[in-house]
Amino acid sequence: MAFSEFRSLDEKSLIEYIKAEPALSSKLGSNLDDIKIKEVGDGNLNFVYIVVALGGSFVIKQALPYIRCIGESWPMTKERAYFEALALREHGRFSPEHVPEVYHFDRTMSLIGMRYLEPPHIILRKGLIAGTEYPLLTEHISEYMARTLYFTSLLYRSTTEHKRAVAEFCGNVELCRLTEQVVFSDPYKVSQYNRCTSPYLDRDAEAVREDNVLKLEVAELKSKFCERSQALIHGDLHTGSVMVTHESTQVIDPEFAFYGPMGFDIGAFLGNLILAFFAQDGHANQVNDRKTYKEWILRTIEETWNLFHKKLIALWDEHKDGSGEAYLPAIYNNPELQRLVQKKFMEDLFHDTLGFGAAKMIRRIVGVAHVEDFESITDASKRAECERRALEMAKLLLKERRKFQAITEVVLAIRKLQ
Amino acid sequence: MAFSEFRSLDEKSLIEYIKAEPALSSKLGSNLDDIKIKEVGDGNLNFVYIVVALGGSFVIKQALPYIRCIGESWPMTKERAYFEALALREHGRFSPEHVPEVYHFDRTMSLIGMRYLEPPHIILRKGLIAGTEYPLLTEHISEYMARTLYFTSLLYRSTTEHKRAVAEFCGNVELCRLTEQVVFSDPYKVSQYNRCTSPYLDRDAEAVREDNVLKLEVAELKSKFCERSQALIHGDLHTGSVMVTHESTQVIDPEFAFYGPMGFDIGAFLGNLILAFFAQDGHANQVNDRKTYKEWILRTIEETWNLFHKKLIALWDEHKDGSGEAYLPAIYNNPELQRLVQKKFMEDLFHDTLGFGAAKMIRRIVGVAHVEDFESITDASKRAECERRALEMAKLLLKERRKFQAITEVVLAIRKLQ
Repeated sequence: MAFSEFRSLDEKSLIEYIKAEPALSSKLGSNLDDIKIKEVGDGNLNFVYIVVALGGSFVIKQALPYIRCIGESWPMTKERAYFEALALREHGRFSPEHVPEVYHFDRTMSLIGMRYLEPPHIILRKGLIAGTEYPLLTEHISEYMARTLYFTSLLYRSTTEHKRAVAEFCGNVELCRLTEQVVFSDPYKVSQYNRCTSPYLDRDAEAVREDNVLKLEVAELKSKFCERSQALIHGDLHTGSVMVTHESTQVIDPEFAFYGPMGFDIGAFLGNLILAFFAQDGHANQVNDRKTYKEWILRTIEETWNLFHKKLIALWDEHKDGSGEAYLPAIYNNPELQRLVQKKFMEDLFHDTLGFGAAKMIRRIVGVAHVEDFESITDASKRAECERRALEMAKLLLKERRKFQAITEVVLAIRKLQ
Repeated sequence: MAFSEFRSLDEKSLIEYIKAEPALSSKLGSNLDDIKIKEVGDGNLNFVYIVVALGGSFVIKQALPYIRCIGESWPMTKERAYFEALALREHGRFSPEHVPEVYHFDRTMSLIGMRYLEPPHIILRKGLIAGTEYPLLTEHISEYMARTLYFTSLLYRSTTEHKRAVAEFCGNVELCRLTEQVVFSDPYKVSQYNRCTSPYLDRDAEAVREDNVLKLEVAELKSKFCERSQALIHGDLHTGSVMVTHESTQVIDPEFAFYGPMGFDIGAFLGNLILAFFAQDGHANQVNDRKTYKEWILRTIEETWNLFHKKLIALWDEHKDGSGEAYLPAIYNNPELQRLVQKKFMEDLFHDTLGFGAAKMIRRIVGVAHVEDFESITDASKRAECERRALEMAKLLLKERRKFQAITEVVLAIRKLQ
């Protein structure tokens, strides 16, 4: 029973759907009488069901035509599921170990069937709040970012492939607009959706809205976000879009994917690590002062960038005589020049990364969607203190990003501000 | 008689085509027995026919599936006519006084019928070679550039409109690739298509290919060209794409149009004026030393930028509370900030303009397609001298463009180099 038009599923109709869809039912083994379904969507946008039977499991994610956490008053195209499936498959081609496999996609139903990331996988953000170290995280996430960004950029691709893909993802415009609004616009103006830890941060939020230099810088970043099709980016790569165990790192939820600036992904990840760092003082108690863990987060920030840098350059060197059209081998034909172009490219990307990372931090403190890292600090005045330091750090990064030459200097600035 | 599939027309079959096409035949009046047709395509790519009858006239432009000046050995999609017609109509909406009206477009036939720019309209480049001053040129061309670029950018448009248009023009990828090759690649490597005034400039061409800093800078510009969808640009706005009289300025041939960086258009125009300047010494003789004319060209360079700057800012101010999504009025809400963002925007655009202008100059001296300004200097050693000064100017602009703060400084540098 395939549905000829969209309907939102519940647990009962989902079972019927699965039984009628061989790509899904075949994943569950021969006995379909004992299917267990659990709705677990804790995100802002979609319904997510875990489906388990004796012979196997998967996850079903269905997009509804509005934003779940706000309700039907904020409509949002369910076509985002199409772009999510496309991005999962595309990123999965390049980084299969860190992207869940897609088993099934139904465009009419805006429904994706994909690998269930079984326990002990948890959302990285929850692990960071709990104070858990993940020894392979930097290795994995840098691998994911380097490979997905490199292979979808003109460093690897021909212009023909690139423009075809750019055109297709232009269709994901509604999700791009949502980012433009909540990241680059709302925090810098009065908006009904903004909130902050009031009254403690009221003046800080106002200061953001009155900071001409900040607003000048955020305009430059917004224009890069809207105009620069550098690579197929995840588009929402915060620590809530990563699931982890000690051995595994899986990137989920790329429904905001489109061809945009690489730094937006790297910045999202690093910026959310910095938020996690500044939230630690709010989670400290007499049993655990979180000092060691804060050091681990700082090392994670540093290593993520350094490993990303190393892996991107390694891919570039490996394929430098390939089909990528940005730097033709006949032109960039001597080792000194190769070093020069790579240095310039990485410097620009580093500054983009810091800028976008900072913008993503700011919006989590004075914009609509906050992060559990801070929200879980129940003492509002303590929470505000943590948030204020993170906000100061973000403002510094956004305004002075071009002065930072290395990630160690960023870590040093974080230490100074704590 | 509409053709159901593509065929290249000659003067005879074109008459049959016109008679069968009311949108065209109606332009010629009631008497179709006296149609006169003349093939005048002197460009590199297409066939162009002037069609005149007693009651009216028009021009027919047909794209063939290869590059005319090279022949069938260099295939080129005839779909470029579709993007040319689209750009003529889009730019014509915003600057109708400087874009010829399209009467008819036939996608199957890759054929455009449009206004005939009657004598004394001539190609601007020929006027510059002849030493003719055009008193309204700067006013007109700055108006054309400011309006077409402003109204197709996010300064005026919503993201939704913008991404839809960007996606459509991604289809013009073959023409973009041609630019990438002949502007950003071939001049910087050994290529069978390159030529220069040999043997005089052999060493200069070699020096371009061995200049690491130049190649580093050109890579940045190429990446902007490939990745930054800032506005619907003409894509080939040199002085051969402009027809002029003393009263009229008309921009033709936007078959390279796509969403790219604004500076590529402005730079193409200014860069070709600088080429025209350095060619003047080759046209000087005992009757006319061209000194006065060189001053006119320098004034034209200066005024074009200054008027463009003024007009773009005026449009921005006029529509600042409109639907453009780059700078929301609720955020950019005070005059000081408005001045700051405009200053930064125009500075970046100025540096882009100088960079792209320089790249367009270099490719005309050591790349495949040269300009009549120099080619018409018959004494090869004299021509080489003029070209060498232009090449030095271009290299300076490309490498040092960020040091120039105003167009007067560029004019000063040109004076110094002559």
